[in-house]
Amino acid sequence: MTKFDEATQAIRVDATTYDVCLDPGYSIGGPLNGGYLMAALLRAVVDASPHDHPVSTSVQFLRAAVPGPARVRLEQVKTGRTATVTRATLVRDGQAHLDALVTTATLGDAESTWSATPAVPMPPVEECVALPEPKPESGMTLSARMELRFDPPTIGWLHGEPTGRPESRAYFRMAEPQDPDPFVLALAVDALPPVVFSAGSRGWAPTVELTWHLRALPAPGWLTLIGQGRLIRDGWFDEDVEVWDSAGRLVAQSRQLARLGRGGGPA
Amino acid sequence: MTKFDEATQAIRVDATTYDVCLDPGYSIGGPLNGGYLMAALLRAVVDASPHDHPVSTSVQFLRAAVPGPARVRLEQVKTGRTATVTRATLVRDGQAHLDALVTTATLGDAESTWSATPAVPMPPVEECVALPEPKPESGMTLSARMELRFDPPTIGWLHGEPTGRPESRAYFRMAEPQDPDPFVLALAVDALPPVVFSAGSRGWAPTVELTWHLRALPAPGWLTLIGQGRLIRDGWFDEDVEVWDSAGRLVAQSRQLARLGRGGGPA
Repeated sequence: MTKFDEATQAIRVDATTYDVCLDPGYSIGGPLNGGYLMAALLRAVVDASPHDHPVSTSVQFLRAAVPGPARVRLEQVKTGRTATVTRATLVRDGQAHLDALVTTATLGDAESTWSATPAVPMPPVEECVALPEPKPESGMTLSARMELRFDPPTIGWLHGEPTGRPESRAYFRMAEPQDPDPFVLALAVDALPPVVFSAGSRGWAPTVELTWHLRALPAPGWLTLIGQGRLIRDGWFDEDVEVWDSAGRLVAQSRQLARLGRGGGPA
Repeated sequence: MTKFDEATQAIRVDATTYDVCLDPGYSIGGPLNGGYLMAALLRAVVDASPHDHPVSTSVQFLRAAVPGPARVRLEQVKTGRTATVTRATLVRDGQAHLDALVTTATLGDAESTWSATPAVPMPPVEECVALPEPKPESGMTLSARMELRFDPPTIGWLHGEPTGRPESRAYFRMAEPQDPDPFVLALAVDALPPVVFSAGSRGWAPTVELTWHLRALPAPGWLTLIGQGRLIRDGWFDEDVEVWDSAGRLVAQSRQLARLGRGGGPA
């Protein structure tokens, strides 16, 4: 069992209640990463479902969560032959922190009938770069759990050269040897720095809502994350992330609606 | 009050219950259109919220709904200064048909800080074409409620010439004189024929999940709907629809995950 598997473990209490222990290793400087929280919640959903895969997950992020004991409460909304719909709520200190609706189903290994190609080509991983290690006092423990290699222009904001467009692109894998699975994908779709950093914005950009669809089970190896936004307006922005696997297949699609950081709007 | 306003009216029974009367005028040949059902559900959500606009709506479509009396049951998940999160369930004949999580907030009239442009340019509305009127026996009553003018190649499937890509593009307005508002947008994001028709597929393509974000209040006039898919695989496809208003602003973004029609897969 990897550290990530352990940190997202959901222990069955009864048919509608699972215990999870929110791990301090997935912090983005105080609050825990949203993708990590989704992964823990989805472990409970999938364990309780007759189906194998979290095909469609919509989450409202209600409050920033900190490490410690938490519960996932499940309500089975509908179960059918091909899919089950579950409402799942992550509760910490008696308060709902994430509220989700999830469709589970069992994906087959069919080839794609039709597929788009990535919107932007990525340079080879050898030409991509890591972010500098965060200072220990930042509380940014998440960085040590995963490896990200960025398409260099999309982290130009780091040295004062944002591209001027909301975008972020990187190769992704877990720091420990671990093949990607749907729970790793839940982490991956929220693993990039906010796309608005490339448009000149700064500061924590809290996610309001994130929906992601699992489209295929990923092959082992690096994942490619292609992130972009379409509109920054009135303090709100969208972030669309496609995840492609090492076999060149689109394995996950996500979109989140988020708030601009308090650190100031785009330049 | 327009027919659409009347058909989506939600009458308050108490703080958590609204009555709606599902109107036979929004049928797609038996079942009611998903966008129409979302609009009725959102009327209840917005009426019960201290905030004005349905900014983010995620819906799981559990069962196909037919006309008649129904209820919207609300649960206020969280209310804060800037946003309220509500769970809303559309119940018909004692069964949940739509289950939704909705963030309401109040959008301002600020200009965009940054905006993408439409992925595909549209020809002028005069060069776009309507679909032939459906036969009365088809039960397709929805067509009479709205005007759609299609970018011609994207309805080439009608005479055996699909473009070969999942796409659909049209100008949209209500058949009655009515300025677009957030409820009209809920209808608009699910108003196009399934994008997979252009990829050679046929048959009813039931939506499993649809999430849409309201990004700005639309200006009066035609709306432009730009629909495309990214992957058709294993009986599932995605459909992404952007809605642009007559002032050229992105006012809504949606993505749905749907099942391929039983009428057979893409050619």
